[in-house]
Amino acid sequence: MKIAIMGFGTVGTGVEEILYKKRDSLLKNNFDIKIEKVLIRNKSKKRSPLDGDLAFTDDFDEILNSDVDTVIDVTSSLEETYERIVKLMKTGKNIVTANKAVVSKYFEELNELAREKNIFFSYEAAVAGAIPVIHPIMEETFFSDMNKVQGILNGTSNYILSKMEVEGSSYDEVLKEAQDLGYAEADPTADVGGFDAMRKIRILSSLIYNAKINEEEIFTFGIQNVKKCDFDFAGERGYSIRLLAKSELAKGKINIYVIPTFIKDNFFAKTFGGTNGVKVWGENFSAYELKGPGAGKLETADAVMRDLLRVLARREIKTFYDAGNSYEVENNLKNKFYVRTCDVSEKLKDLIEEEKVLDDQHLIVTKEVSLDDLRDALGDLSKVFLAEIEEDL
Amino acid sequence: MKIAIMGFGTVGTGVEEILYKKRDSLLKNNFDIKIEKVLIRNKSKKRSPLDGDLAFTDDFDEILNSDVDTVIDVTSSLEETYERIVKLMKTGKNIVTANKAVVSKYFEELNELAREKNIFFSYEAAVAGAIPVIHPIMEETFFSDMNKVQGILNGTSNYILSKMEVEGSSYDEVLKEAQDLGYAEADPTADVGGFDAMRKIRILSSLIYNAKINEEEIFTFGIQNVKKCDFDFAGERGYSIRLLAKSELAKGKINIYVIPTFIKDNFFAKTFGGTNGVKVWGENFSAYELKGPGAGKLETADAVMRDLLRVLARREIKTFYDAGNSYEVENNLKNKFYVRTCDVSEKLKDLIEEEKVLDDQHLIVTKEVSLDDLRDALGDLSKVFLAEIEEDL
Repeated sequence: MKIAIMGFGTVGTGVEEILYKKRDSLLKNNFDIKIEKVLIRNKSKKRSPLDGDLAFTDDFDEILNSDVDTVIDVTSSLEETYERIVKLMKTGKNIVTANKAVVSKYFEELNELAREKNIFFSYEAAVAGAIPVIHPIMEETFFSDMNKVQGILNGTSNYILSKMEVEGSSYDEVLKEAQDLGYAEADPTADVGGFDAMRKIRILSSLIYNAKINEEEIFTFGIQNVKKCDFDFAGERGYSIRLLAKSELAKGKINIYVIPTFIKDNFFAKTFGGTNGVKVWGENFSAYELKGPGAGKLETADAVMRDLLRVLARREIKTFYDAGNSYEVENNLKNKFYVRTCDVSEKLKDLIEEEKVLDDQHLIVTKEVSLDDLRDALGDLSKVFLAEIEEDL
Repeated sequence: MKIAIMGFGTVGTGVEEILYKKRDSLLKNNFDIKIEKVLIRNKSKKRSPLDGDLAFTDDFDEILNSDVDTVIDVTSSLEETYERIVKLMKTGKNIVTANKAVVSKYFEELNELAREKNIFFSYEAAVAGAIPVIHPIMEETFFSDMNKVQGILNGTSNYILSKMEVEGSSYDEVLKEAQDLGYAEADPTADVGGFDAMRKIRILSSLIYNAKINEEEIFTFGIQNVKKCDFDFAGERGYSIRLLAKSELAKGKINIYVIPTFIKDNFFAKTFGGTNGVKVWGENFSAYELKGPGAGKLETADAVMRDLLRVLARREIKTFYDAGNSYEVENNLKNKFYVRTCDVSEKLKDLIEEEKVLDDQHLIVTKEVSLDDLRDALGDLSKVFLAEIEEDL
């Protein structure tokens, strides 16, 4: 069973480590896996794989023209990787990818191509790390309509929020700490801006609804503007603040958004650190909840391994997602919201249910209002902190 | 794809309902499933399948001699069903079963027979209902050593415990209510005595450790003796009481037991009603947690459907469990315990860290002690309430 790996960063080294350390166990179960080549960008960089004979290359064509069965993609680039995956698929190679940006942006194209070429396209590692989410949901779609999914899908944001909550620290302090520890990137925008979570909720939702959702249609609001005073305000009312990615299909319309949320449930509000959590509602069960490490070397490699073994043993589901349904993305959810702004428009005044003034900041709980109307009343969101308020169930 | 069903109780009717209602969706995904026969005990009983043409029989041989590919077992008998499954397997039929008693008692025999006959043996529905637990763990065993698993695995017990906790009701009141609602059987021993949870932790643990564990080796203590005063005592100290099934493999020895537990974590202590929860520790991740409905018609049928489609599409894992490891079951865990007894022996006196006397009852927190020593000090357990105390992590 010949495979190749594209990328040898954190997750790539994790995959190599598992394949090396578990060689005996894998052999016993008839998995004789050989890593033919690892594609890297900089051949002169010192690397320390456990297998000293591991072959590195910076020439993509060596992988494209090889006879490997499956290529594991653990890169983080978008367009370049997409183009490469397409080329690999066209030569009949199965793909296992952890690249959520590519999966989210090109979900329809890649699933269609996999079907056309009759190969496997697996992406368990693209959502919620070690937690088995994608495959069980895939199975479920054959015989159960799921109409709602919510998640804490970005570990970095959750690390920052839960740390601010528990320790009472400032956003900047915790972000710097997360960056020092390697939990957050130098440019943290994808994480704290909600874009990473947005990609994951797009993948989960499209899978569940079998419908295309464009990334731009997803209302995405991050945590960059959150302050200690928001946690104080929430805490006084019994709420935690978490960045939730949520979608629901009702009456043929989809509401899908990533938004900080005041929440006091037993699941999301109790999710701390870099942990991810996913809650799925289906017609055969009220909901089930999955929680676990959403990132990390061995954690994400674990998900890659699940996919890899399924593909190599031909136990994977041949791609069935075909965007066969078409739903309008409505995004006009109605709820109470929390907003903090220094600029209270006349329109916003009409929406206030409760208000607290701290220096130049107005901390406001709105009446029940549609997100569209609220955005209209708020105007420019760049200086505002906004959160949906989820009543306790 | 011809199948048969043995049993047409709650879960059996759920499977028929899903197969009937989802026929179009299943067909679209190339599952043309026909229920050839349903085995029932009493042919004269009135039944209302959605498919009016569904064929019932009370003659097992009609199924044994049929050419069905897979037989779904949703019976609740033990020896009779075991013998039938063996006969079916010997004729090359794949088995999907929700019968935890059979799976637990004959795990080695059935896995061995499935290997010998090169067929599929699936039992997702035997543990934790709709929560996808067994299959993801199976996959994990190929490349990850898991050394610990814990669960709330019996919905009836959890319903009783969490209801007593929340409402302050008595054990007898809540049990009667559960029986009236159909959550508990007329003879609730298997549930409240911990035996159902014992079977499930045996299955999960054997799977993870690839080692045989005899049911009799599992220390099993139920909730029959719990009283309101135990919840008061626990609650004053910030604890909930839950019936946990736990096992751990350390230094080549297994500790495995079902025991009421004082707990204040964010997972088990926050599991209410008939919900099940499972927490698995593995070498590639700290732990992941799965929570959802542990029983119910469509909930359990959902798990049966996962297995069935995997088997019919030949995507299931061919049985690999071979009890290849052999570990001593030690069951000498050390911890603090809570005991309530009216009979305080001299040996028990030496173990007391904290004591409260209520009428003739002594409510005791022990020092750290081994379970063996504590049992020795307690003597007859039939009138005692016993719980392990898990310190907050």
